[in-house]
Amino acid sequence: MKLVRIGPKGAEKPAIATESGFADLSSVISDITPETLADLPSALKGVDLSSLPAIEPGRFGSPISRTGHFIAIGLNYADHAAESGMPIPAEPVVFSKAPSCLSGPDDDVVLPQGVEKADWEVELAVVIGREADHVSRADALDHVFGYMVCNDVSERAWQIEGTGQWIKGKSAPTFGPVGPWLVTADEVGNPQTLDMFLDVNGKRCQTGNTTTMIFAIDEIISYLSRHMVLMPGDIITTGTPPGVGMGMKPQTFLKEGDTMRLGIAGLGEQNQKVVRRKA
Amino acid sequence: MKLVRIGPKGAEKPAIATESGFADLSSVISDITPETLADLPSALKGVDLSSLPAIEPGRFGSPISRTGHFIAIGLNYADHAAESGMPIPAEPVVFSKAPSCLSGPDDDVVLPQGVEKADWEVELAVVIGREADHVSRADALDHVFGYMVCNDVSERAWQIEGTGQWIKGKSAPTFGPVGPWLVTADEVGNPQTLDMFLDVNGKRCQTGNTTTMIFAIDEIISYLSRHMVLMPGDIITTGTPPGVGMGMKPQTFLKEGDTMRLGIAGLGEQNQKVVRRKA
Repeated sequence: MKLVRIGPKGAEKPAIATESGFADLSSVISDITPETLADLPSALKGVDLSSLPAIEPGRFGSPISRTGHFIAIGLNYADHAAESGMPIPAEPVVFSKAPSCLSGPDDDVVLPQGVEKADWEVELAVVIGREADHVSRADALDHVFGYMVCNDVSERAWQIEGTGQWIKGKSAPTFGPVGPWLVTADEVGNPQTLDMFLDVNGKRCQTGNTTTMIFAIDEIISYLSRHMVLMPGDIITTGTPPGVGMGMKPQTFLKEGDTMRLGIAGLGEQNQKVVRRKA
Repeated sequence: MKLVRIGPKGAEKPAIATESGFADLSSVISDITPETLADLPSALKGVDLSSLPAIEPGRFGSPISRTGHFIAIGLNYADHAAESGMPIPAEPVVFSKAPSCLSGPDDDVVLPQGVEKADWEVELAVVIGREADHVSRADALDHVFGYMVCNDVSERAWQIEGTGQWIKGKSAPTFGPVGPWLVTADEVGNPQTLDMFLDVNGKRCQTGNTTTMIFAIDEIISYLSRHMVLMPGDIITTGTPPGVGMGMKPQTFLKEGDTMRLGIAGLGEQNQKVVRRKA
């Protein structure tokens, strides 16, 4: 199934894709959150979606609200590591994004004042459905609820030229567009065969497929779960294929008025306009 | 006021310190969470604490549940930067801990299998009470709800010898003991004059005072708020004074059976035993 949250920012309603559009889930669950996620499939069992009121997709929000941990994997595609001038890592590079950077898939990306090196990164994001503590690679995918598109927007100066910890360049508000859909794992099937792309101003910049990940999703989950407990609702965005602005010659970064369009097969598309924060 | 959560892990009840002990707040608020924090002072207004049932402090949990973001500042005491062999940073070093590492102040600290370089760090933790987005240094402390003791337990091999991102060595379950009390900002007064200490096996290892921070709390909040939006319930642990095991000659790390005792003036004390994860 494809879960969405529809409505103005901060007042989204939970909904689900149907054959003809979207059905409002407000009568079934209060919202899609880390707390409600695990019970969602059973709450939906026996519900006749055609009996629920339809809801118009005005604005999509992040398909999950109040995520506890927004984890990210760096340099997880060999070609992207090369274009970044960094060696292929021997183990997953783990960092995080502030949960408050989450935004809807088509919301404007807002550049803070002074930011001149903002960059794009189309990524496959995993949403954890079940607590994962020291899980084996063989069992890892049982802990996945579903998948989403994520644009891991990155300010390269803050990420790399500062103190060496990446979180600062990854966390500004609107730097984490996810969605439009949270697609359940059963519907996605094998997550390592998904085509992905990102266009800037209508020009194809990133083309990739999850088959070329250095660390596959089951490996990432197993590895992370030996360093921290993964909780329901945690998001893991799993790295980006080649074609980011930092790797271009000359380097090219986002500026006011730019548009981004990005998508992953079966997970939908995002469309963002870049604006500048006023003050 | 001093807020606490008392009870078995995962089933703690909210409570408040009174003249004679602790009063159960369950009839006033469901729990102390990011969602309830902002309304807590008004919810408590007019409540006669002596009319509430007393609650025995069996086990203290983390004074706040389901924190959204557990942020940490590195190398924020000049002497500690020196003992770590790292230069005094020109701007705050920002990293994060997994929210799932939060634990009670007296819970065992559990070393994962293979971990040989776990270290202690007594720190002043700030709990955000009001959203902070581009706040000035002058306004920053208005966004603080209160303060807690934090032991920023750190696995140095995972933190430093790996891929350069510190989160991996900071996030194992039980690596984030906080509390016992969440003391409101009005009761703490000036947060930059607080004595702090940490003993290992009864021997004083860390002695410090928040007056020697490189970046003061108002500066940290203002700085962070220009890179990410801080949300109610976010925890910022603000760095450790000298005396960690990594800085000793020879280096000394935590082993099974060790005990830690740590505290900050006015914020209470923690007592932890170090155990080894079974498998």
